[in-house]
Amino acid sequence: MSIRTAILGATGAVGDEFLRILEERNFPVSKLTLLASERSVGKRLKFKGEEHVLEDAAKFSWKGTELGLFSAGASRSREFAPKAAAAGVVVVDNSSAFRMDPKIPLVIPEVNPGDLKNHPGIIANPNCSTIIMAVPVWPLHRANPVRRMVVATYQAASGAGAKAMQELIDQTRDVLAGKTVKPQAFPHRIAFNLFSHNSAVAENGYNEEENKMLYETRKIFHAPDIRISTTCVRVAVLRAHTEAINLEFDRPFPEAEARRILSSAEGVQVVDDRKTNTFPMPIEATGKDPVLVGRIRQDISMPNQTGLALLAAGDQLRKGAALNAVQIAERLFPRA
Amino acid sequence: MSIRTAILGATGAVGDEFLRILEERNFPVSKLTLLASERSVGKRLKFKGEEHVLEDAAKFSWKGTELGLFSAGASRSREFAPKAAAAGVVVVDNSSAFRMDPKIPLVIPEVNPGDLKNHPGIIANPNCSTIIMAVPVWPLHRANPVRRMVVATYQAASGAGAKAMQELIDQTRDVLAGKTVKPQAFPHRIAFNLFSHNSAVAENGYNEEENKMLYETRKIFHAPDIRISTTCVRVAVLRAHTEAINLEFDRPFPEAEARRILSSAEGVQVVDDRKTNTFPMPIEATGKDPVLVGRIRQDISMPNQTGLALLAAGDQLRKGAALNAVQIAERLFPRA
Repeated sequence: MSIRTAILGATGAVGDEFLRILEERNFPVSKLTLLASERSVGKRLKFKGEEHVLEDAAKFSWKGTELGLFSAGASRSREFAPKAAAAGVVVVDNSSAFRMDPKIPLVIPEVNPGDLKNHPGIIANPNCSTIIMAVPVWPLHRANPVRRMVVATYQAASGAGAKAMQELIDQTRDVLAGKTVKPQAFPHRIAFNLFSHNSAVAENGYNEEENKMLYETRKIFHAPDIRISTTCVRVAVLRAHTEAINLEFDRPFPEAEARRILSSAEGVQVVDDRKTNTFPMPIEATGKDPVLVGRIRQDISMPNQTGLALLAAGDQLRKGAALNAVQIAERLFPRA
Repeated sequence: MSIRTAILGATGAVGDEFLRILEERNFPVSKLTLLASERSVGKRLKFKGEEHVLEDAAKFSWKGTELGLFSAGASRSREFAPKAAAAGVVVVDNSSAFRMDPKIPLVIPEVNPGDLKNHPGIIANPNCSTIIMAVPVWPLHRANPVRRMVVATYQAASGAGAKAMQELIDQTRDVLAGKTVKPQAFPHRIAFNLFSHNSAVAENGYNEEENKMLYETRKIFHAPDIRISTTCVRVAVLRAHTEAINLEFDRPFPEAEARRILSSAEGVQVVDDRKTNTFPMPIEATGKDPVLVGRIRQDISMPNQTGLALLAAGDQLRKGAALNAVQIAERLFPRA
């Protein structure tokens, strides 16, 4: 079994990670096509030691391709995903274009793999902050439904792409050299700073990233009533998101039970040693598949053990994006 | 009117800020004595253009000194504050040594200046994260009592002292140069990273910093039942703390009312422009007296407008430490 695969957005930070993960996991790619916008056409990228020339997405004939991994932004996805799906391609789309479309499954394989059963040729990959929160919260929610969540994020530059990661590095160097800096990829200085997430603030006072975390989680968990308040903040970290998560339950949820559940939960690695102050950190989550979870504790502000608090960290480019998409592809094209 | 003043811990990050703030505010210092541990004795520091030689705290005769500003750690405070107080000095102590002592007032001038009335010669300055949270929350709490708070912090290196600030700079330079780094002031790498606050984790699963935020706030607010759950995280920022604050109330608290109250609250500056994504940032809070507050919004996860969410940022060395202590001193020694 081998799958004719096309990657849209291969030159981006997530595209780069698609190639690495497909190779690492030995995903059975038979013919790999790398697609990009006109200005990147002709560039070359390596996959399994072989060079691939980037082709123009606008001129590509989708017929014959079985799997499309898309990460080129919502407008490209809106343009190309329906065409690809019409030609029989199954598209796993990392953009926000189709996530809230009721006909399109929004999937985290550890959470709602069953939603893959009926798809119209497009499956949406959730927002990175949503995934990194949902992976550790889901096994707890399944044991004892979460009533309300309060989350604060510490988001890496990678969520804004390769240019933003480079800006963090270059700008930090400039600040250390005493030079004045001029933010470009981000609206504000990121070096030795942090700022409220750089997405538009909606009518309800929450920014797009925060609203994604609410509405996507409701869809993925099939929990239309779950209440979530998040504050999304960009920090001077390269590529893993950290999240402080407070959970409220109707029924008591003893800390020991949460710890037991998380210790065997799929996609989760518990990093929680109080004695040595060893807890999830973004530099440790970087390059790893599981979401690291620690600071597991009974929330002292809730009565009768009805609250839990956690700290989670996950690689934004891997589980937050490319890895989750490839895991979806693995479920769609199971090996014999 | 002029006050004979001694500073203990003058060589530290907060000590440095004491000197700057006393000068800036033209605090009426008549005789300034700078005290340090033996190894710093003989060093010189400037105040109002004049050099002052550091003296040995262990050999100093406190008699005749009217005001002591202490920031040399809890054990030095335990050693010297009672001696100084016995000699008639009024000590404003920035350490944690006396904060929870029921006989010692724990004061934020904007919140509980009345507690200064009866003091036994020692007044405790609260923890920096507590102050930066309490200044914007207090005017809201006074209008409509807070039932529960969930807070996540983004704490600067300065909270761990001048060495930690230098470590952030040097280590960042080393990481950019591809060198291996060896954390010393902090237990973990801070450059392009973050970690759960580097204080011991207590029996209840919360670290010392988090427990300080709970118990100190209860004392300062005279609210023994207020429920607070915090997650304290150290980030790659030099000297201002940021905090994501979620508030729950028994009665509705419309966002517009919160905004109106915060706009005229003492010690607070509202920075909250949704259109231009202008919200509190640590580099903007640095060097400023007020706590910046923004992202003021109705918490969408609470029913009937009974929740609010905020983002606050305050200079850890100023309002979080030295400025608050000097403001206390100004209340203790009012000008004619």
